[in-house]
Amino acid sequence: MGGDTGPAAVVAGLALATKENPDIGFILHGPKETLEPLVAKRRILRGRVVVHDARDVVSMEDKPSHVMRNGKGTSMWSSIESVRDGAALAAVSCGNTGALMAISMIRLRKLPGVNRPAIAILFPSSNPQVFNVMLDVGADVRADARDLLQYALMGASYARNGLGLPRPRIGLLNVGTEEHKGRAELKEAHGLIGAHTEQGSFDFVGFVEGSDIPGNRADVIVTDGFTGNVAIKTGEGTASLIGDLLRQAFRHSPMSRLASVLAISSMYRLKKRIDPRRVNGGVFLGLNGIVVKSHGGADATGVSAAVRLAYQLAQSGFSAKLAARVANTSELTDDTTEQEGQD
Amino acid sequence: MGGDTGPAAVVAGLALATKENPDIGFILHGPKETLEPLVAKRRILRGRVVVHDARDVVSMEDKPSHVMRNGKGTSMWSSIESVRDGAALAAVSCGNTGALMAISMIRLRKLPGVNRPAIAILFPSSNPQVFNVMLDVGADVRADARDLLQYALMGASYARNGLGLPRPRIGLLNVGTEEHKGRAELKEAHGLIGAHTEQGSFDFVGFVEGSDIPGNRADVIVTDGFTGNVAIKTGEGTASLIGDLLRQAFRHSPMSRLASVLAISSMYRLKKRIDPRRVNGGVFLGLNGIVVKSHGGADATGVSAAVRLAYQLAQSGFSAKLAARVANTSELTDDTTEQEGQD
Repeated sequence: MGGDTGPAAVVAGLALATKENPDIGFILHGPKETLEPLVAKRRILRGRVVVHDARDVVSMEDKPSHVMRNGKGTSMWSSIESVRDGAALAAVSCGNTGALMAISMIRLRKLPGVNRPAIAILFPSSNPQVFNVMLDVGADVRADARDLLQYALMGASYARNGLGLPRPRIGLLNVGTEEHKGRAELKEAHGLIGAHTEQGSFDFVGFVEGSDIPGNRADVIVTDGFTGNVAIKTGEGTASLIGDLLRQAFRHSPMSRLASVLAISSMYRLKKRIDPRRVNGGVFLGLNGIVVKSHGGADATGVSAAVRLAYQLAQSGFSAKLAARVANTSELTDDTTEQEGQD
Repeated sequence: MGGDTGPAAVVAGLALATKENPDIGFILHGPKETLEPLVAKRRILRGRVVVHDARDVVSMEDKPSHVMRNGKGTSMWSSIESVRDGAALAAVSCGNTGALMAISMIRLRKLPGVNRPAIAILFPSSNPQVFNVMLDVGADVRADARDLLQYALMGASYARNGLGLPRPRIGLLNVGTEEHKGRAELKEAHGLIGAHTEQGSFDFVGFVEGSDIPGNRADVIVTDGFTGNVAIKTGEGTASLIGDLLRQAFRHSPMSRLASVLAISSMYRLKKRIDPRRVNGGVFLGLNGIVVKSHGGADATGVSAAVRLAYQLAQSGFSAKLAARVANTSELTDDTTEQEGQD
């Protein structure tokens, strides 16, 4: 039903995504009488969309606990159910993040070995792959050392399958790069992650700082969901402030207005490079199934980016690979915890 | 001794600051034979700099605990001592933040009623005053609800005296604006801060998100030192990435290079608006005395900005005003804690 922008933006996004991937198909969840006319207007979607009637909608204000008890008739619940029963290979939603995570947790269940699932996003960076992975950005406001190790393993697997990095560099977010800095759970996580580089097929660069999230010291930034959520929103807010100031600067004088005309294609490239719509999609990691959370305000471009990501992860068999990686290392975790004193 | 850039940048910064404030004077701490020739070269500094000989230097790598035990002969220790004994009205340092806070804590002591001192910085924002105050950004990695209330009171006082806002709007940083979100200590702090708006002469806008740090919903952002440190570094890193990409975009084609020439004065204004050197200076709040921590990599412009801030705060009698505000409300805090159940 499309978050803030409604189902029309979702259907337009499906049309865009189909242009790129002609073998894609959709199950669309929501009131038939709303969705079917929207689908019928798009010739490219003919024959590839099954509308699954669902009468209720989860609103952005609904509390996750309420949705868990009363959400069975909603389009969100129905979409997760279609992943659970195998009808869909991945779910994409623009709706309420907390409710989507709650439904995903109870219907898809956590992978063996995972304590807290995480939401991973892509953040524009100066690395060659143009984005860094960061997790958790808000599935849970707390994470202990074991959770942070799981995030490192899941983030590495996602970077391999989502960004094509054979051996991603993992950084653990802290207030400084020196090993004596930060909270106790971070020092413990430092030891745990450092002991799993071979088993997890990643390099560990140790502690990184906020400035490394858009930087090139690491490919995957591991943190708890509170810090990660504040960090991505601070980054987005800063980018948005600079964008506004840039527009003001270009409007300032006749000369700067002429400059803006001459620079238009360069500025368009820059905008595209850091446009959050292009990397739209938080991926829920640690569940039995792929769930992509699109931005609530996503337009057609944003929805198509989220669908593309879901499609790519489904095609790469990401879900099974991640499950194997986490199951494998959940045993190793036990080994390492016992050996921790030797580190 | 000037952080990463050395004492020459500091002395150049003093010269710049003197141009703006002709009645300023300095006590400069460090080895006489290094500092005196640097000062002698600047005619504008003649007669206004007393060099206080100090043989040792705190390095950026020194642990705070080491400096607390062995730092007596350092220029950093000597500069804090000059505030303690009243010879100076404020101290400015470009050195090791942890060591500076440690020395300030043991020599200046905490204000009555303050449990954890905080570091407050100015962050570029879309508010009319062009900056928002954020604290804590790294004095301590933890903060409980009482500490967050103290930060709100101290941040409001700083915004009044540093930014000229008679009744600042305080926001408490969280992962969402809904009251049920976030960690337990944040919900408790929400109640405490909300109960002190009249006594602290501020408005409380409730929970704010990372995107509000550069935004206009609040003038003062209150958070713990871990989250605040990650947030400002993420903001700085994002701004720096966009700056690099902007330069690349302008170099891309003959047309964009021409545009960059035409836009040069507009871009310069934009850069100045968000230049971290212009707002250089984290202020230590909650101590008996004014200490301004300049960026370690500060050049002359950065040092002069930090000196200007210290000068302005010293002139406004900020230290005494803050002490009164916190002492006043430390009693109120006790009242409120007892009444908490009624809220």
